[in-house]
Amino acid sequence: MSWFDLAGRDLIAETDWTREEYDIAMKVTDQLKGAYYSRIPHPTLEYKTFAMMFFAGSTRTRMSFETAMTQLGGHAQFIDPQTTRLSLEDKPGAGETVKDTAEAMERYCDGVGIRLLDDKIRYYGEADEVMQKFAKHCRVPIINMASDINHPCQSLTDIYTMHEKLDADVRGKKIVIMWAWSPWIRGWCSVQGTALISSLYGMNVVVANPPEYDLDPRVMQDCRDLASASGGSFEVSHDLDSALDGATVVFPRNWFTKDRYEIGKEKEAEIAKQYVSWKYSAERQKKLGNPGYLLQCMPVDRGNEADAEVCDNRLSWILDQAENRLHTQKAILTLTMGGRL
Amino acid sequence: MSWFDLAGRDLIAETDWTREEYDIAMKVTDQLKGAYYSRIPHPTLEYKTFAMMFFAGSTRTRMSFETAMTQLGGHAQFIDPQTTRLSLEDKPGAGETVKDTAEAMERYCDGVGIRLLDDKIRYYGEADEVMQKFAKHCRVPIINMASDINHPCQSLTDIYTMHEKLDADVRGKKIVIMWAWSPWIRGWCSVQGTALISSLYGMNVVVANPPEYDLDPRVMQDCRDLASASGGSFEVSHDLDSALDGATVVFPRNWFTKDRYEIGKEKEAEIAKQYVSWKYSAERQKKLGNPGYLLQCMPVDRGNEADAEVCDNRLSWILDQAENRLHTQKAILTLTMGGRL
Amino acid sequence: MSWFDLAGRDLIAETDWTREEYDIAMKVTDQLKGAYYSRIPHPTLEYKTFAMMFFAGSTRTRMSFETAMTQLGGHAQFIDPQTTRLSLEDKPGAGETVKDTAEAMERYCDGVGIRLLDDKIRYYGEADEVMQKFAKHCRVPIINMASDINHPCQSLTDIYTMHEKLDADVRGKKIVIMWAWSPWIRGWCSVQGTALISSLYGMNVVVANPPEYDLDPRVMQDCRDLASASGGSFEVSHDLDSALDGATVVFPRNWFTKDRYEIGKEKEAEIAKQYVSWKYSAERQKKLGNPGYLLQCMPVDRGNEADAEVCDNRLSWILDQAENRLHTQKAILTLTMGGRL
Repeated sequence: MSWFDLAGRDLIAETDWTREEYDIAMKVTDQLKGAYYSRIPHPTLEYKTFAMMFFAGSTRTRMSFETAMTQLGGHAQFIDPQTTRLSLEDKPGAGETVKDTAEAMERYCDGVGIRLLDDKIRYYGEADEVMQKFAKHCRVPIINMASDINHPCQSLTDIYTMHEKLDADVRGKKIVIMWAWSPWIRGWCSVQGTALISSLYGMNVVVANPPEYDLDPRVMQDCRDLASASGGSFEVSHDLDSALDGATVVFPRNWFTKDRYEIGKEKEAEIAKQYVSWKYSAERQKKLGNPGYLLQCMPVDRGNEADAEVCDNRLSWILDQAENRLHTQKAILTLTMGGRL
Repeated sequence: MSWFDLAGRDLIAETDWTREEYDIAMKVTDQLKGAYYSRIPHPTLEYKTFAMMFFAGSTRTRMSFETAMTQLGGHAQFIDPQTTRLSLEDKPGAGETVKDTAEAMERYCDGVGIRLLDDKIRYYGEADEVMQKFAKHCRVPIINMASDINHPCQSLTDIYTMHEKLDADVRGKKIVIMWAWSPWIRGWCSVQGTALISSLYGMNVVVANPPEYDLDPRVMQDCRDLASASGGSFEVSHDLDSALDGATVVFPRNWFTKDRYEIGKEKEAEIAKQYVSWKYSAERQKKLGNPGYLLQCMPVDRGNEADAEVCDNRLSWILDQAENRLHTQKAILTLTMGGRL
Repeated sequence: MSWFDLAGRDLIAETDWTREEYDIAMKVTDQLKGAYYSRIPHPTLEYKTFAMMFFAGSTRTRMSFETAMTQLGGHAQFIDPQTTRLSLEDKPGAGETVKDTAEAMERYCDGVGIRLLDDKIRYYGEADEVMQKFAKHCRVPIINMASDINHPCQSLTDIYTMHEKLDADVRGKKIVIMWAWSPWIRGWCSVQGTALISSLYGMNVVVANPPEYDLDPRVMQDCRDLASASGGSFEVSHDLDSALDGATVVFPRNWFTKDRYEIGKEKEAEIAKQYVSWKYSAERQKKLGNPGYLLQCMPVDRGNEADAEVCDNRLSWILDQAENRLHTQKAILTLTMGGRL
């Protein structure tokens, strides 16, 4: 596990890369961010192409990746899979198979990003399966731009931002990932990703949610394993206010229940309505002993997930965090698509 | 008001920039057009990103901006806002706010272009409000790529083209902006923009339209004020043929009534039908004392707004005018996104 | 007919270019492919723009052209004509005419690619008419990215791939273009294109199809004429298995009947169902005396047009063929948009 091994690598799940590899990515992020603010050109991927398959919409992910490629001297293609022949159903007559699409794409590009989640899949886990299939059939790096299970580019951004803001001293700090009410009924990838990366880096991680909202048990087990190896801790709590006690960082976010793809969105909305009081507010922010910083991957449902006040005050990191998507992804692209083989 | 002040500046309304600033933009346009036709590379915005938000469709605006960024060494992102989370309704649960979207976008790009008009808005003035909100929350330049009220990139192109074609001698020349019948039911931005810029440059400006089609009174007042300061004149006429008398330049174009967003398109079509004779024809072109040149921002509804003959004869400027969008916008982008701060 | 003549040239039909000109394009393809695999930069089209009008969806065509422009130092704009004002109906009030769109586009770009076929047209021949109209009104090169009749970029790729794989010795080799059953009901451009280019290069060309599926008589006559000039041969057969006898290359592909635009897709499906046994299988591949290589432009309907086995075994060229789209198109773009005038 070294710099050498990152060239050509996929990044689909947070657990695909080791702590040492994320450290390398953060070191390169520092270098590229420094070059950017010093206006030093850094065309590490000149003439190269990153193909972005956006099954689902996006603001930050699309812009940050496309801008990243421009700053690195290459180009990102924005591809709506509906404009291609691809079908996720693997049967005669249905459309082009993932295998054929992936094997053709690798001939035209130096890396493939895929965003597939929420309403674009039929069951939890399908997006991950599609990405694994792409990875199997593509020798160029496959980068997860948000799936049903994972969101490693966001996760690296989160841990990089926490290192920046907390003087690189995240070990032992408490982070609370709290469920928050919203009519948006959102997927699990961001919250699971933040839980995984925080556990990997030895933080004390608490996921606080109403009982119906327990996350993927396998991911939670991964968190426990990572935390125990890193000297951190991981727990799930169903009591919000006690969970928040002493937290340094809070990540409020809505997500759906494990039954989302069976029961549909209306039933989801009904269950969620019981918990409208689960909101991150100035009141709750003040209760925390230490400054309780706001980490949130955006978009944030203002007034529901979090009050405007806590999004905009000096304890909110959300915009610097959003910007760091650009810098960390430039490191990921540079190392996987441009690294020395 | 100097070269120095243009770096980082927005361009939303024609009146945002002074006469001196448009003169600077035209000087830089000359330089960039010269470099282009001499095949001298001029990558003034290398590695930079211009984010184009196209709420409404476009041919010339999209291609000219995207080509401009390529020629300047950077990249323009073509963004359909429907692929983002943005909502123009500012309330909890509705989608991402303009504030959050704008504040995140400024982290990823060096300038933002917005095109929002016609069927994409709910009332006259809404597009301008959205652009002002973007400008408030974005420290990078906001460039209006056509709104309900203004179209400054087209306007600069128009005045630049008139300077080119009339030996830089536009002062005192008569320009008639005439309403023309078409089933297209189009917005006001282009005609108001041309009226404003022509008034700023001391032309004798006449807007000729049937009584139902008077334009925005505030914009018309701006025209009067600009004309009086520049030594030009501005008037509105409801009599087409006398208005055309002695004109050097004619801009025929359909537009809707002030009630467009209350009465809807069918009622609009009904009102318009009374004036099918309002068309720019070879007959009308010949009546003008001087050569009456055709200025039209395209698309032109051939056979309705203007006869094919006047679009294609030697008095038609429309294609050189279309091309100048590229050159003037390269100047705007270079000065606002690349200028020395 | 020389290198000099290719600058500024259109490529709409296979017959637009001579054998000598395709030879030049293949020589340049060799050079650009060599430079690519040697990682030698080759920005032949720096700062230039190729405008891609995709009326119909695509995977390979879009990615290969967009990647080509990036590798050549320029940029390809991905344009969905629905986001423009263009109307293919040439009448007042319908939208912007092809003439105006084309004449404006030539001011913004250095070449135009058009993809228009299948469900996007109303009758066979319409797409070709539209491209001819664009060519008439555009002084920059018009490149056919697939029409109803022709697909010259694919055809050049096919003949280049056959030269690569058969040691540049294609003359006298037998190629069978076979109709194959699929519910996809596809257009004629690829099969007609491969027939034309193979005839031009002196191959023994057989088109094998059920009687209802005879192709465009004018194209078939062109094939006969080309074959007779090149020392090759051209014939149509309605007996699949005898047609395959002794073939070196087989191209299995579904296509519709000549009545497609009159009878609609359901009736087409009904006619096709009689011929489900028309499939390229391992069985059929083995029957050929020589190795029978698979040439197929993809997407392939696996299990219908061809069995997975023949797509994936060592006799299948399909992925190398797909990759060659990139290299041959870089040659076409370089010669037409960048060549010395």
